[in-house]
Amino acid sequence: MRSETDILQGHMVVDNGRIVSLGAERPAAEAVEGAQRINGAGLLFMPGLINTHGHAAMALLRGYSDDQALQVWLERDMWPMEGKYTSNETRWGTALALAEMLRSGTTSFVDMYDRMDIVAEVTEGSGMRGWLARGAIGLCSEAEQDAKLREAVAFARDWDGKANGRIHTMLSPHAPYTCPPAFIERFVQASVDYGLPMHTHMSETVAEVARNVEDYGCRPVEHLDRLGLLARPSFVAHAVHLTDEEIALLAARGTGVSHNPASNLKLASGVAPVPRLLAAGIPVSLGTDSAASNNNLDLFDEIRLAALIHKGVSGDPTAVPAFTALQLGTTAGARTLWAGEELGMLEPGMKADFIALDIDQPHWVPRTDMVSHLVYAGSGRDVRHVWVDGAQVVKDGRCTQLDEERIMREAQLCFDKLNR
Amino acid sequence: MRSETDILQGHMVVDNGRIVSLGAERPAAEAVEGAQRINGAGLLFMPGLINTHGHAAMALLRGYSDDQALQVWLERDMWPMEGKYTSNETRWGTALALAEMLRSGTTSFVDMYDRMDIVAEVTEGSGMRGWLARGAIGLCSEAEQDAKLREAVAFARDWDGKANGRIHTMLSPHAPYTCPPAFIERFVQASVDYGLPMHTHMSETVAEVARNVEDYGCRPVEHLDRLGLLARPSFVAHAVHLTDEEIALLAARGTGVSHNPASNLKLASGVAPVPRLLAAGIPVSLGTDSAASNNNLDLFDEIRLAALIHKGVSGDPTAVPAFTALQLGTTAGARTLWAGEELGMLEPGMKADFIALDIDQPHWVPRTDMVSHLVYAGSGRDVRHVWVDGAQVVKDGRCTQLDEERIMREAQLCFDKLNR
Repeated sequence: MRSETDILQGHMVVDNGRIVSLGAERPAAEAVEGAQRINGAGLLFMPGLINTHGHAAMALLRGYSDDQALQVWLERDMWPMEGKYTSNETRWGTALALAEMLRSGTTSFVDMYDRMDIVAEVTEGSGMRGWLARGAIGLCSEAEQDAKLREAVAFARDWDGKANGRIHTMLSPHAPYTCPPAFIERFVQASVDYGLPMHTHMSETVAEVARNVEDYGCRPVEHLDRLGLLARPSFVAHAVHLTDEEIALLAARGTGVSHNPASNLKLASGVAPVPRLLAAGIPVSLGTDSAASNNNLDLFDEIRLAALIHKGVSGDPTAVPAFTALQLGTTAGARTLWAGEELGMLEPGMKADFIALDIDQPHWVPRTDMVSHLVYAGSGRDVRHVWVDGAQVVKDGRCTQLDEERIMREAQLCFDKLNR
Repeated sequence: MRSETDILQGHMVVDNGRIVSLGAERPAAEAVEGAQRINGAGLLFMPGLINTHGHAAMALLRGYSDDQALQVWLERDMWPMEGKYTSNETRWGTALALAEMLRSGTTSFVDMYDRMDIVAEVTEGSGMRGWLARGAIGLCSEAEQDAKLREAVAFARDWDGKANGRIHTMLSPHAPYTCPPAFIERFVQASVDYGLPMHTHMSETVAEVARNVEDYGCRPVEHLDRLGLLARPSFVAHAVHLTDEEIALLAARGTGVSHNPASNLKLASGVAPVPRLLAAGIPVSLGTDSAASNNNLDLFDEIRLAALIHKGVSGDPTAVPAFTALQLGTTAGARTLWAGEELGMLEPGMKADFIALDIDQPHWVPRTDMVSHLVYAGSGRDVRHVWVDGAQVVKDGRCTQLDEERIMREAQLCFDKLNR
């Protein structure tokens, strides 16, 4: 992942959750004595993908409402259904999403939702790596705001570092348009007090930006900067509508952007200015958003979209080349999550989060440029095995830690109940 | 495919290459005596997909040149490699493409290339249905033009209706910018003389449209109309850059448009005005173009792109709804190929070209809107079985008529030789 020609035929040794060695030479017999061996013939190994924005439990609402205006989708269809969620829906919706993500090669994911204790429990059991935050909407009474902030902080403090370090936590005021400024400032203060990073939605739609200007006299980037959020380790989802000044300010603050191309297209929000963000040196990673606005959680789809749409929209066929798109889904995702030293690449010392794709199929032939194949022809459905922390979590296309049959059955029951 | 709620749990009987009956009721025992039975549990059956533009043999150049300006890609990389093609490269490149298309659920394809006898032979052997044409570039001497026209006509007359009616032929002057007007007129005359339909590239790039205006004093649609091409049964590929007047003229002539979203994005040609084309009543179908500019031949990808990009670009989340996108890949493809009475739907009397997808996977859960799932979450990799003319051509994800192992091996050898 440091260079696009950096593809190796050789051997990788993993021990205690980390990559020990990687090279063309066969490792010495004593270095691998008693080790489990995996034959990589016909497989392409690469770092696990990193999905930096989503709401896993909404997988229950996949296909429930499509091709609607944003407000109809959200207010008529999503919110009432989400309002009926209990712990049971959160549990099985999250499990459904994690099964889909793991099977399609995503090893780390970001989740912003509620009932996060449940999300964390499911994450722990799945073998997946998660950056989790209680997403808080502040359009409510002060008492409710207090309760949400308390819950968000308690969750973040309880779970950070759990599951053998696979679970990380963050603080997430939902968005500038759903949180009063004072509420966001309280989250920023908690972020300082407890040393937690922050994540929020920002500038997804034109309407939301216009409302920000009307309500607060400035656009969302300046607004969040005034509230102190951008001074914290933070990244924002969407960032579709940005001025050059806003891009410069995000770059100056080191704020990451989670680009969600499928969701932004499907909800007709627009196309984020990714080439300009990259030119400014901003860490741009990829997110699926929820399965209700995508409607799949295969990050390979986002990688391909990121490589395709910016060319078509800008008229520049060299915009977001294949290798850049692949980096968005791997190394840039790791950097966004302050884990660039441990994730997103296969190198000695890094965590052993990796996937193996079945390339013994026509769409991977001929062997020309494997990075190009991964981006333009590959798919999460080509993923055959997945490891996180050196433990195999998908084998022959099936999750090993999650009971897929039961998850699909329970998810259907949950949906049927919600839809009654 | 007549309505988006038209989804049935029941039985389908096929005989002699056609659908005999379809219904919720179990067919009478005597109606299916001795029949082969297929258990559809966990499978979604739908019409085979129809890919209305491509150059199959270019699959050998998948990943050979990416992220380049169009002229560099074409003149520096594609043309010299294609210049080295012999019958062997055409054979194995075509076979590679057909294997990929069949496995991903495409049952009918359009091909415009040369050495079409070989393409037709491979098509015949694959079990697939093809609309084939010798694509002729007219930037050459009159003697060479004569030879190309003769070859195109001879191929079309020899092969039309062959392979038990699975092969159809057309006449294809390559494009207005690669064919002098008189050359196009000779193809039009041959189309009249032999009763053959026509297919060409049109208005893919801004530069090509500008050159047409400079050279001929009008834009490509008017130009092709003056040459008589649009008066013939015909459809054009790309049609990215069109005025309202051009759309009205295409609609008046009944000319179809093959929309190639991935190729148009990847080569930075732009986004075709599909919502306006549909509003004008033009048959809009989907094409992958070649694997050198896509770089895959999975028509589900084009269906999803068609549903996503027009929303994002227009700002209208109701643009190209899921069911419309699915129709582009099925019924509209059939209409484009003058086969709307026989293909693109599952109904009694229609040809038995159908596919079965494995929906016993997390990304197909819950069972909300199966059309939405097909478009936004489905993939050609979910296709498990494929039938053309009632004969099974893909079983458990593998081609039955094509030797996939040999094709992949030979395709690699061909590429290695070309690349020497």
